Amino acid sequence: MTRLLPSLHSTLSPLVLAAAIGLGGLAKADDGLPHPGFEITAGNTALLVTDPQNDFLHPDGVAWGVVGKNVIENGTVEHIEELFATAQQTGMPVFVSPHYYYPHDHGWKFEGTLEKLMHTIGMFDRKGALDTAEFEGSGADWLARYKPYINDGHTVVTSPHKVFGPETNDLVLQMRKQGIDKVIIAGMSANLCTESHMRELQEQGFEVMVVSDATAAAQLPGLDGYAAAMVNFRMIASDVADTETVTAAMLAAVN
Amino acid sequence: MTRLLPSLHSTLSPLVLAAAIGLGGLAKADDGLPHPGFEITAGNTALLVTDPQNDFLHPDGVAWGVVGKNVIENGTVEHIEELFATAQQTGMPVFVSPHYYYPHDHGWKFEGTLEKLMHTIGMFDRKGALDTAEFEGSGADWLARYKPYINDGHTVVTSPHKVFGPETNDLVLQMRKQGIDKVIIAGMSANLCTESHMRELQEQGFEVMVVSDATAAAQLPGLDGYAAAMVNFRMIASDVADTETVTAAMLAAVN
Amino acid sequence: MTRLLPSLHSTLSPLVLAAAIGLGGLAKADDGLPHPGFEITAGNTALLVTDPQNDFLHPDGVAWGVVGKNVIENGTVEHIEELFATAQQTGMPVFVSPHYYYPHDHGWKFEGTLEKLMHTIGMFDRKGALDTAEFEGSGADWLARYKPYINDGHTVVTSPHKVFGPETNDLVLQMRKQGIDKVIIAGMSANLCTESHMRELQEQGFEVMVVSDATAAAQLPGLDGYAAAMVNFRMIASDVADTETVTAAMLAAVN
Amino acid sequence: MTRLLPSLHSTLSPLVLAAAIGLGGLAKADDGLPHPGFEITAGNTALLVTDPQNDFLHPDGVAWGVVGKNVIENGTVEHIEELFATAQQTGMPVFVSPHYYYPHDHGWKFEGTLEKLMHTIGMFDRKGALDTAEFEGSGADWLARYKPYINDGHTVVTSPHKVFGPETNDLVLQMRKQGIDKVIIAGMSANLCTESHMRELQEQGFEVMVVSDATAAAQLPGLDGYAAAMVNFRMIASDVADTETVTAAMLAAVN
Repeated sequence: MTRLLPSLHSTLSPLVLAAAIGLGGLAKADDGLPHPGFEITAGNTALLVTDPQNDFLHPDGVAWGVVGKNVIENGTVEHIEELFATAQQTGMPVFVSPHYYYPHDHGWKFEGTLEKLMHTIGMFDRKGALDTAEFEGSGADWLARYKPYINDGHTVVTSPHKVFGPETNDLVLQMRKQGIDKVIIAGMSANLCTESHMRELQEQGFEVMVVSDATAAAQLPGLDGYAAAMVNFRMIASDVADTETVTAAMLAAVN
Repeated sequence: MTRLLPSLHSTLSPLVLAAAIGLGGLAKADDGLPHPGFEITAGNTALLVTDPQNDFLHPDGVAWGVVGKNVIENGTVEHIEELFATAQQTGMPVFVSPHYYYPHDHGWKFEGTLEKLMHTIGMFDRKGALDTAEFEGSGADWLARYKPYINDGHTVVTSPHKVFGPETNDLVLQMRKQGIDKVIIAGMSANLCTESHMRELQEQGFEVMVVSDATAAAQLPGLDGYAAAMVNFRMIASDVADTETVTAAMLAAVN
Repeated sequence: MTRLLPSLHSTLSPLVLAAAIGLGGLAKADDGLPHPGFEITAGNTALLVTDPQNDFLHPDGVAWGVVGKNVIENGTVEHIEELFATAQQTGMPVFVSPHYYYPHDHGWKFEGTLEKLMHTIGMFDRKGALDTAEFEGSGADWLARYKPYINDGHTVVTSPHKVFGPETNDLVLQMRKQGIDKVIIAGMSANLCTESHMRELQEQGFEVMVVSDATAAAQLPGLDGYAAAMVNFRMIASDVADTETVTAAMLAAVN
Repeated sequence: MTRLLPSLHSTLSPLVLAAAIGLGGLAKADDGLPHPGFEITAGNTALLVTDPQNDFLHPDGVAWGVVGKNVIENGTVEHIEELFATAQQTGMPVFVSPHYYYPHDHGWKFEGTLEKLMHTIGMFDRKGALDTAEFEGSGADWLARYKPYINDGHTVVTSPHKVFGPETNDLVLQMRKQGIDKVIIAGMSANLCTESHMRELQEQGFEVMVVSDATAAAQLPGLDGYAAAMVNFRMIASDVADTETVTAAMLAAVN
């Protein structure tokens, strides 16, 4: 066959790939991949938090049994709060994409595995879009400690996503209507809603990065959702960093 | 908080989750998740193959250095051909979503990690959408052994996807215009284009399953793309099975 | 140039186009266009009603001043109810796509003409997605006479669309999850939300038709939104018919 | 009902609506609607041309019989060239979204009226995505006079759209990857592809305006596509202006 880059091909190995990238920036990891990096610029960079809700983050939440250990290990609850607080302090626009299910969603004629599981355990259930009875403090409600940030009058809460990504809500429009081009992603759960939001925002032409310890995932026998997400965040996003690094960069961007 | 399913919550552990599912079908894996399953029905089920191109599947392809070992281990090349052959034999509609980059794509002002890598190594490069010079046998061309199937006059080849998913091409429309509701997904690479197609098709309301050994992924130090994809296929799709199981089901569906 | 259909070209005139279509069905209109037609089939055909809300359909609604005359002329209010009633009688799935604006939507940095107008007159305003205070009977609420149908426990009310089309809500997913492939469209307003829903559903591979007298539009000096919509419905949808014809076909489809 | 803006409602008439807008800018038309306006800013504003192809714009094109008269009246061919030339002169990024049909598109199981017509008359037909035989000078090819602009090495030609809008191609991604937020739209045909592009780009959060005399539409007995488009451009886009006004603004924006 005609090789497009014969000079490259014969030496194509992970380490050489890194060399091929050359100016890809100081390697953070010896994994052979480039490091595009992500520069926080005031005005067009936003913080996005997916599913900061009780069913994932509260010990009484219906999914705590499968995500709780990872949430505690990562310090996810505290790290998400640090991001909310730093965004508020620096005036960075914040968007929250919640996950709600209504009675009619339980009538779907087919479901993927986790969709089926969420419906079976009543995850994120609400009585209806116009019925807030018994919502307060339910599994679908925000984790209480986040309410002062989400209800600050500035944060944009989108319509609920219905599978895992923002294809079914108004997140892309809301961010574009605010002039947002770059997105820092955190929230639950790492390999499902968080990753699907990352993938879709990138398909829609946003520049994205993920906060590695402000998320967590279900870990089941032979299925480590968090490990899977970390591989895909590294390969797909422009950058991945921890909360300490990201909050420091958020502060630096406005000083 | 008000627990939505108090009776469930106190017992929420992986094993009990499986019990909670009850009729979720005979458990294939002891991972605590339900098994929605996927029934092949003639007429509205299609085979989708992503990126069956030289740069991934031919030893001279620019990505072979990072995916070749996994392609050989999985028997990916042979399994994709078995799926093409069985679809042709059973009259199952086949859709192919290719990955091409044109000169103007190299002018993108920002890229994610793998986007940057693909552009750096000239992966899937073509001279232009209307210029087929030097395309034959290039890294962007089909693996030669698949050409008799893809060029059979029935297979629908969509426009190229540009990041990883079908959001940027006509796959969803082409499938709907043929009455397709269910999709069997195979092709390259497992955790990037194959998984992004799975996720997007599910967001668009298709019922999907993935063929576990008719795909493969990049494996780099500390980054096993195939392992990550297997976790997400299991958690997100309606079913995951190997080529032998899927081809047998395809044949059974028409007899 | 090389003409693709030289035999056709030299005679390409509206009347000859009709002839060229040949089996396009008995012409309903002498406009030279084919008539694909739309067959209602039980199980995969749904009724979609856009914006059946007070601000459009109630004399006290904020838009009544510009749409009221057309609403009365078309008998829109009564015809939408006939469609709701017939769908309920025949068991046809019904989907409603509402239009709501929250306080944060008023912070958009740019708007199109009607977006700007809607925000200026407070059209479809709500206090928040989780705040239903003062919603009852407001301009954003359903027209009272439709509530028994919309609240019947079967009708699927999607998340709100935010511009004119369903790109920003879960309509496509909800329809696909119910096995819907064909959609009968009615509601407000003809050339804005109704037409944008028609266009988007067709891009997503649904077969669509519009009910000509179960919709209406703003009519301003030199700007007849209804006339514009009728031209585009005829050119784009598979069929256009009045409520009497559509309800008869709905009844016939289940007998 | 509880009126949202009682003080406005009782006086809601087109003229009062204009007053209600207040700072909406000096009214260009006495139609009672606001005038958001569209400011061309170098760097993030692009020119988009839809379907600048022979089948619409060349007297031998298969659709000339129905659009030719309007194309000549509007001076569409010359105005589109003036926009291409001014964009090249001012360094404004240019995107072209073509319309192509391949053999497999003729196998669609259902079509809307104009989709059916286009397929019947062989409009935009090509032998295949990878087969350019007989493409040169065909109805699907660019109008010859535009080739120097489209083939200048800078213009981004997207994948083909398949119905009327960019939902089925990579236009949104290509524009975002170039940092484009604002779009000046021209091309064919006014109420179909041009309008569907306008509507979809607005749903995706772009700020859009349309060039009124750099487009044209099919005009059939009782169906004036151009008149319909003008109504919707005025109601939906942020601004509508003629080529002379737009090219002057393009020049002013870089001086």
